[in-house]
Amino acid sequence: MLERDKNKTEVNIYGQQYRIVGSESTSHIRLVASIVDDKMREIASKNPSLDINKLAVLTAVNVIHEHIKLKEDIERLENEIRRMKEGQ
Amino acid sequence: MLERDKNKTEVNIYGQQYRIVGSESTSHIRLVASIVDDKMREIASKNPSLDINKLAVLTAVNVIHEHIKLKEDIERLENEIRRMKEGQ
Repeated sequence: MLERDKNKTEVNIYGQQYRIVGSESTSHIRLVASIVDDKMREIASKNPSLDINKLAVLTAVNVIHEHIKLKEDIERLENEIRRMKEGQ
Repeated sequence: MLERDKNKTEVNIYGQQYRIVGSESTSHIRLVASIVDDKMREIASKNPSLDINKLAVLTAVNVIHEHIKLKEDIERLENEIRRMKEGQ
């Protein structure tokens, strides 16, 4: 991708500014940032003594855990489609 | 869930120790931790000047971005199944 095709978006996550550079739209990047901000605040409310670094790492842990569950859902749906195609 | 049914697992992510408490198995928690560790190292290798705090937040951003794509995949597969059922 050419540098001129990349979007640079400034976002605020948990009180800090980040410049995110990527091919995604500014609105997508803002959505992603707001989800991370929400999740960090949710985890912080349950663990008020955590520093921001551990909080962010635990947010990533939390999301990867959900990620693995989503991948299992995808596998289940793909198997369902395969079985339906075989039955046709 | 009762407290005695919860697993407590010590993991190391990017050189820091975390105690993760949850209903998931120790092997699942270790898998999740190793994925987060890998992602942090991957992002750090591309952005060597980042401090650990921003690195952790950008890892969470990265993971949420992939998460949204997976959710779109699930929606697509569910629509495919719906169309196949309607066509039967």
